[in-house]
Amino acid sequence: MTYSTRATKAKLAGYQKLLQKKYRQLQRRFLIEGVHLVEEALASEWEIEALLVSDGFLLKKEYPDIERKAASRRAAIYGVSDRELEKLSDTITSQGIVGIVHQRSADARDVFGKTSSHSMIVALDGIADPGNLGTIVRTCDWFGADAILLSDDTVELYNPKVVRTTMGSLFHLPILTESDIPGLLSDAKRAGFTIVATALRGESIYTFSPLPDRCIMIFGNEAHGVRPELHELATVRMAIPRFGKAESLNVASAVSVVLSTFRLRQS
Amino acid sequence: MTYSTRATKAKLAGYQKLLQKKYRQLQRRFLIEGVHLVEEALASEWEIEALLVSDGFLLKKEYPDIERKAASRRAAIYGVSDRELEKLSDTITSQGIVGIVHQRSADARDVFGKTSSHSMIVALDGIADPGNLGTIVRTCDWFGADAILLSDDTVELYNPKVVRTTMGSLFHLPILTESDIPGLLSDAKRAGFTIVATALRGESIYTFSPLPDRCIMIFGNEAHGVRPELHELATVRMAIPRFGKAESLNVASAVSVVLSTFRLRQS
Repeated sequence: MTYSTRATKAKLAGYQKLLQKKYRQLQRRFLIEGVHLVEEALASEWEIEALLVSDGFLLKKEYPDIERKAASRRAAIYGVSDRELEKLSDTITSQGIVGIVHQRSADARDVFGKTSSHSMIVALDGIADPGNLGTIVRTCDWFGADAILLSDDTVELYNPKVVRTTMGSLFHLPILTESDIPGLLSDAKRAGFTIVATALRGESIYTFSPLPDRCIMIFGNEAHGVRPELHELATVRMAIPRFGKAESLNVASAVSVVLSTFRLRQS
Repeated sequence: MTYSTRATKAKLAGYQKLLQKKYRQLQRRFLIEGVHLVEEALASEWEIEALLVSDGFLLKKEYPDIERKAASRRAAIYGVSDRELEKLSDTITSQGIVGIVHQRSADARDVFGKTSSHSMIVALDGIADPGNLGTIVRTCDWFGADAILLSDDTVELYNPKVVRTTMGSLFHLPILTESDIPGLLSDAKRAGFTIVATALRGESIYTFSPLPDRCIMIFGNEAHGVRPELHELATVRMAIPRFGKAESLNVASAVSVVLSTFRLRQS
């Protein structure tokens, strides 16, 4: 059964523009694709404007929860043809459903105020690769980071590849987009956080003692690392010990190692 | 100054075919792109057939070591036009130099025979994403893994994106391609290795005791994990503790966490 409320051509054209960063920024909305991301968005507090369901996709039958939840969240459901849905998709194989979600940036005061002991906040300084950013968001979610701060020159959180790679984790923890990182670090210091800059050389994350209880960990751009200005604001410089010959670790791998090591050493 | 020995059209056409998996398998060669990968290949024991240098690229002047090393390794150097080089490139911005390298698979007997104590071998069971495979190779290199075993359904090691993402680490440690993983695991067990299968649920890698000294760690496909057949061959099933809400970790992140944790706990 298909949805009788059809998306108008004008509406579709507006949504299709969300594939471009410029219009995402103008409209303050973004696209999510596939059942899993739609379920995660519906389970979160993010505002969902609409779901677009292709006629070949058996939402009512196979995912009755999505339909019910969309109604309770006041998200409109529009029927679209497979071809219309394809135009809203960043990937080759459309997954039958696309959502239009309002952008949302966390508030720094909430982030620094609400965090408890063993608090880890991740600050990203100029991450350029969408796959890296998405993977980092997912990793931060797995290890229970309290928040993520994105510098204004980090790749856009609402880029379709970033959104896809987070696997829904962007709906699970506060993320501050286009942050003034130097300003936030100063605020955080006053709130009692230790600022840890990660680098190729520094104190070993395996042995550094005492392990800071509440900290912000800064990870830098894939090619250039953490910028000098932020190193100066940091309390300590830490590095992941190397046992082989690689010149560096991928930044998403580095985030996962650092967060995991802190969790292990806190336990 | 440009190289007067020009690559013939026929030669270039043959090399260009190496962008396709079918011809890489037929010719048992692959392409590497850019100064860094060429330097890593020249510093390794891998056989380099030729370097192709675009006329705009000042190899002689800026990288005299590459020219000298290529001569000592008997790799031919051919001059090509920028346009000809572009046709050999998988990326948009050509880096002025491309190498043709012979494929090479490590030997299982060497791998199991030569490994010392605190030996870690990584077995990859059906990794599908080129970026993940490349990142895993780089991570294994960083943490000093002794070898990598690739199942026959893992994405091809010589895929240009894989090669690029390894950042040269594929030249640093033995990699067995198209491996018969079940057979190798049986061999490894007889050679005294503990077989660790990683999964979403299992013994915590943080606390599992005693930590195996010589082990093979199996990581599975992005969507399906380690296949049941390999779980049966495993000595123990281990998992990375979860602290947040993500349903899973990216497999390259998981590899980095597991290897790092073993190194930390061995120290």
